[in-house]
Amino acid sequence: MVKKESLKAIKVIVFDVDGVLTDGKIHLINDETELKSFCARDLPRIRAFIGSGGKVALFTGRKAPAVIRRGRELKADILFKGELKERKVSLFEELERRYEVRAQEVLYVGDDWNDLVFMKQAGIAATPESGSPENKKIAGIITQAKGGEGVAAEIIEMVMRAQGTWERAVEYYLASD
Amino acid sequence: MVKKESLKAIKVIVFDVDGVLTDGKIHLINDETELKSFCARDLPRIRAFIGSGGKVALFTGRKAPAVIRRGRELKADILFKGELKERKVSLFEELERRYEVRAQEVLYVGDDWNDLVFMKQAGIAATPESGSPENKKIAGIITQAKGGEGVAAEIIEMVMRAQGTWERAVEYYLASD
Amino acid sequence: MVKKESLKAIKVIVFDVDGVLTDGKIHLINDETELKSFCARDLPRIRAFIGSGGKVALFTGRKAPAVIRRGRELKADILFKGELKERKVSLFEELERRYEVRAQEVLYVGDDWNDLVFMKQAGIAATPESGSPENKKIAGIITQAKGGEGVAAEIIEMVMRAQGTWERAVEYYLASD
Amino acid sequence: MVKKESLKAIKVIVFDVDGVLTDGKIHLINDETELKSFCARDLPRIRAFIGSGGKVALFTGRKAPAVIRRGRELKADILFKGELKERKVSLFEELERRYEVRAQEVLYVGDDWNDLVFMKQAGIAATPESGSPENKKIAGIITQAKGGEGVAAEIIEMVMRAQGTWERAVEYYLASD
Repeated sequence: MVKKESLKAIKVIVFDVDGVLTDGKIHLINDETELKSFCARDLPRIRAFIGSGGKVALFTGRKAPAVIRRGRELKADILFKGELKERKVSLFEELERRYEVRAQEVLYVGDDWNDLVFMKQAGIAATPESGSPENKKIAGIITQAKGGEGVAAEIIEMVMRAQGTWERAVEYYLASD
Repeated sequence: MVKKESLKAIKVIVFDVDGVLTDGKIHLINDETELKSFCARDLPRIRAFIGSGGKVALFTGRKAPAVIRRGRELKADILFKGELKERKVSLFEELERRYEVRAQEVLYVGDDWNDLVFMKQAGIAATPESGSPENKKIAGIITQAKGGEGVAAEIIEMVMRAQGTWERAVEYYLASD
Repeated sequence: MVKKESLKAIKVIVFDVDGVLTDGKIHLINDETELKSFCARDLPRIRAFIGSGGKVALFTGRKAPAVIRRGRELKADILFKGELKERKVSLFEELERRYEVRAQEVLYVGDDWNDLVFMKQAGIAATPESGSPENKKIAGIITQAKGGEGVAAEIIEMVMRAQGTWERAVEYYLASD
Repeated sequence: MVKKESLKAIKVIVFDVDGVLTDGKIHLINDETELKSFCARDLPRIRAFIGSGGKVALFTGRKAPAVIRRGRELKADILFKGELKERKVSLFEELERRYEVRAQEVLYVGDDWNDLVFMKQAGIAATPESGSPENKKIAGIITQAKGGEGVAAEIIEMVMRAQGTWERAVEYYLASD
């Protein structure tokens, strides 16, 4: 179990995309087009965390147009593995440079093998209920939600409750149209 | 629990689209196209309610072409949040103007935070089984159906049974081809 | 329960498309395109029934290109409601004219209100596990499969077993590549 | 149950595509386009098996562009039924020619009737939990996963564990970014 103190320290949440923000299905339409299925519920919660002063980054291998569009809607940053590799910068070096944070202040959410190395480095590592056994073994948090079914929403509620910013975010929505 | 008297008073049903009439997934195809998954079963029941003299409005943030098409198929009205905002009219002012109804006569169905304020104002508030905890807390009706799996069908059966118009609608289908 | 004698008499199986051969979701891509999700398993079984001398017709309201393509793949006929209406011919008149069958020899599978009138007329009426309560009430067969998850496969196995043609169809596949 | 000795002998794994690597749904978009839904988790595991010296082939009836693209991503070979037929070569003759393997060294995964004949010939036959009853009857392995939900991942873990190459593959991912 992750301690409340660790959650309070989180300033940046990094989400792997396929299998975390989406359902881990690769939906191909012919050879060039791809369909990505995100969860509507993640959006207001990601925005609320950003509104409370937090940072959110999507971390992805490919520049899929659907991911770029979703990132824009979520008002989240997008970090491309290829670009970091080209610039010979590791993920956590980039996070430090961008957000002035240490690894302790980063929560990383991933569901499969290519996330393992980042999960080991982050202050808190999380994986969805649908994550692979190897990821679950090293995760401090396993969400009840499966990939694409509100993983980000669940993680963010956990962090914001620990940080005491959750109630205000809900009240904001109750009060305004 | 909602009383039969309240259901009898309902003249207008307003449906949030994403997460209520659809499954709450944001299916993106590249950066411009979106796939929306509606439930076939909602259609004959929405039409039956309209046939019995009721009004149905879809309430949505964006002018997605798929929503406009579905609204046309359902023979329902569509209200765009942006348009109301531009005209500086609240949802319930618009409903009163269009349909000459009071809030008491409106049933609003929503699944997430941006619906909370409207659910508080409507005569009856409903949310799907897949609605967020905050919505469930203030909902008078929680449907057995999840978003996109017959929420409208379930709500409308409840309203039409209370209003005594359900049996006739079914018989109409049994009699004609 | 349907008697084996009734199943033996079946010469034509008519399938409603949305909610029976598909999952009853209306997947809209923008305003002109539609995605239809069929079950792969239905195909060899529909073909086997046709191979055993039976007839299969898809009965549908709209000339959706995906349905026309699927009908071609299944080697099934397609009957359009609009065309029959134009020619002022009822479904069962058309079935009698095309296949020289009486209503007793027709099995009709439908899942919602617009199928009720045909289910009442057919020798055997079937509906998927996901069919509406009104359809289940008058159906002689309720399949274990939900719409789009092998309803046709299940119905055809039932009919072919009653008609003694099932074993040969399976053996044919076991023997040839 | 399949013995560890048989799994150790496996050099080539052949996957039927529809219903094994995908969910067995035929998703049609109009009359020319098709959407195929693969499981993201299969990819690193298929690549790990290839990395350990194994061979992976997708076996499919049609040259669907989405399958060709997915095969390229997986770094797997693709064998087209039509091409083999044209060249009057059986699947196992082709496997012997390409990979210099005997049927004993081949694991074949299929879910429906058209796979039965190949499942009978292969050293090990496997079928998904969603496979048809006839396939389950002759399968040595029935995966816990349904088609499109990690069937290949599960099969490959089983084979690589028997062959003693699994742990190293996971460690490789834990060590590198």
